[in-house]
Amino acid sequence: MNEETRTEVDSLGEFALIDHLTKNNETRNAGTILSVGDDAAVIDHFGKQTVVTTDMLVEGIHFDLAYTPLRHLGYKSVVVNLSDVYAMNAVPQQLTMSIAFSNRFSVEALAELYEGVYAACRYYDVDLVGGDTTSSQKGLIISVTALGEVAPGNFVTRSGAKKGDLICVSGDLGSAFLGLTLLEREKKIWMETQGVQPDFENQKYIVQRILKPEARKDIIGFFAEKNIKPTAMLDVSDGLSSDLLHICEKSGCGSVIYEEKIPINEDARQFAYKLELDPTACALSGGEDYELLFTIAQTEYEAVSQHPDISIIGYITEPEKGNKLITKGGSAHDLIAQGWNPINVKG
Amino acid sequence: MNEETRTEVDSLGEFALIDHLTKNNETRNAGTILSVGDDAAVIDHFGKQTVVTTDMLVEGIHFDLAYTPLRHLGYKSVVVNLSDVYAMNAVPQQLTMSIAFSNRFSVEALAELYEGVYAACRYYDVDLVGGDTTSSQKGLIISVTALGEVAPGNFVTRSGAKKGDLICVSGDLGSAFLGLTLLEREKKIWMETQGVQPDFENQKYIVQRILKPEARKDIIGFFAEKNIKPTAMLDVSDGLSSDLLHICEKSGCGSVIYEEKIPINEDARQFAYKLELDPTACALSGGEDYELLFTIAQTEYEAVSQHPDISIIGYITEPEKGNKLITKGGSAHDLIAQGWNPINVKG
Repeated sequence: MNEETRTEVDSLGEFALIDHLTKNNETRNAGTILSVGDDAAVIDHFGKQTVVTTDMLVEGIHFDLAYTPLRHLGYKSVVVNLSDVYAMNAVPQQLTMSIAFSNRFSVEALAELYEGVYAACRYYDVDLVGGDTTSSQKGLIISVTALGEVAPGNFVTRSGAKKGDLICVSGDLGSAFLGLTLLEREKKIWMETQGVQPDFENQKYIVQRILKPEARKDIIGFFAEKNIKPTAMLDVSDGLSSDLLHICEKSGCGSVIYEEKIPINEDARQFAYKLELDPTACALSGGEDYELLFTIAQTEYEAVSQHPDISIIGYITEPEKGNKLITKGGSAHDLIAQGWNPINVKG
Repeated sequence: MNEETRTEVDSLGEFALIDHLTKNNETRNAGTILSVGDDAAVIDHFGKQTVVTTDMLVEGIHFDLAYTPLRHLGYKSVVVNLSDVYAMNAVPQQLTMSIAFSNRFSVEALAELYEGVYAACRYYDVDLVGGDTTSSQKGLIISVTALGEVAPGNFVTRSGAKKGDLICVSGDLGSAFLGLTLLEREKKIWMETQGVQPDFENQKYIVQRILKPEARKDIIGFFAEKNIKPTAMLDVSDGLSSDLLHICEKSGCGSVIYEEKIPINEDARQFAYKLELDPTACALSGGEDYELLFTIAQTEYEAVSQHPDISIIGYITEPEKGNKLITKGGSAHDLIAQGWNPINVKG
């Protein structure tokens, strides 16, 4: 944010603020018939089905502006919703964004937030088609709803996994949790000893994973190209354990995953060791990785195993077998859902 | 709310809370292919276009729980969004609702809120298909996104009014403002003199207009039945002046309306006199009536003039003529937009 200029929101008024924040808004998708500026937006679907998902992000609960640049926050607010659209095997098309903010936020600060939103819209080819801006009594609240399209019947739920299916995950897991742990540690030090500058130890990767995550547009493109349809899918927002258990519960099945197969970034692994944390535990229980966790029929093994950024980590079993993690030492442990609460993370 | 039972939200956890709040959720529309419980909902459109609109309601800004029952608030949160869908000449089909709430709210309180939401869903034949529940640092924040369907090209924007078109409005105007004024007055008295019970003077109509407004589903049905397509339309949320000016600005035209034609409920009028307020000023600048304000070609005069709940209040002119109110005395005044800020209302 440019600290030299501060325009009070009250000096503009709501309608002028919306005009200001949306003046560079572009429309990319042919299906967006009418965008911002009326009672509602209008969308054409050209025979496709629509997926719709929504998320609310609350300051002090989901993000901390002490270490989150507003531009990154705007970007991430979009990405977490698009990730849910991809997790349905759909392609995002439109989104609406509503914000409530206290008078602590200037027009310039809000414009920064929107720059991040527009950057994500450009990168993911999505149109911002509506929203609402209002006052809050405290802090910043962001609510995004994303719409995506999918060929009729081609969407993928959490409930289709079958015995024998392979369990796959994109990218790597646990890095976002470690990035958050680092940021929280440095914030604590900074608050206790005002003079000390934060030391991020050159941990660019894990910090980026928490502050500016990406959604796996490429994986959905790969499925389309190879004509692969996962049997079940979701995005990893609560941690591998919790999210795999969601699939198994909804699909009525059990699972086995192998510790040695869980993808963990090398920088993240080393940083975990430094903090005396178990990297596997970070992957199992850390959230916000926004990777895709999916199951496929064994007949798709060939195609999927050749993708450099997809790991096959286990397989689906009968429900009676429960959900098991086979450790590197060869012993079997029950997978436990650890509801991941970002505000309770300790460094 | 049943004051005898208080279940802490923390005792349930997020997933159990969502299950609890959505256990009676029913699906009504054939287009709702997949509802609550996955990464996103899935919608089929059967060749129709979709309108999408969103609103955020913040405690202390948009509503005051001192006099707003949670059930009414849930109902109204849905209605204000459906009103925007109708204002596009579309039929609401689905909605998502996200809420953020402090630990002051119990599971029972949230269930009350959802009862109101479900009541509105039943009345308007709409499916609740998704949402998010999370903590807030202060108060209750509600974000609703509504989707509606419309035959391709049949939607009505704010920008199509043409010279000579008739300006029409459904129902009556100003009652919600007067209802709010009464509630604010009684709240003030109650806070200053704890013993005194509120005296609503049997003003059921105006109180209902602010606490439990309805959206004009019937008017959209009338248009469909009579094959009428307004040239421009919006719902009156900011007051007649401000909202008519929106249409004229977007359509590039002027307008003339007649004070004597503005529909005002008789109870509301008498109550305004009692408070020494001008009923016309309440209609022009009071907000939240959620009536439909629309323009039609003169050829539709016959059909519209016979509807008992539609008033023809003026006509569209060239832009050079400005926007005029002709008073009962016959003098012309410029219409002025009075941005209506619900929190600044004084009794």
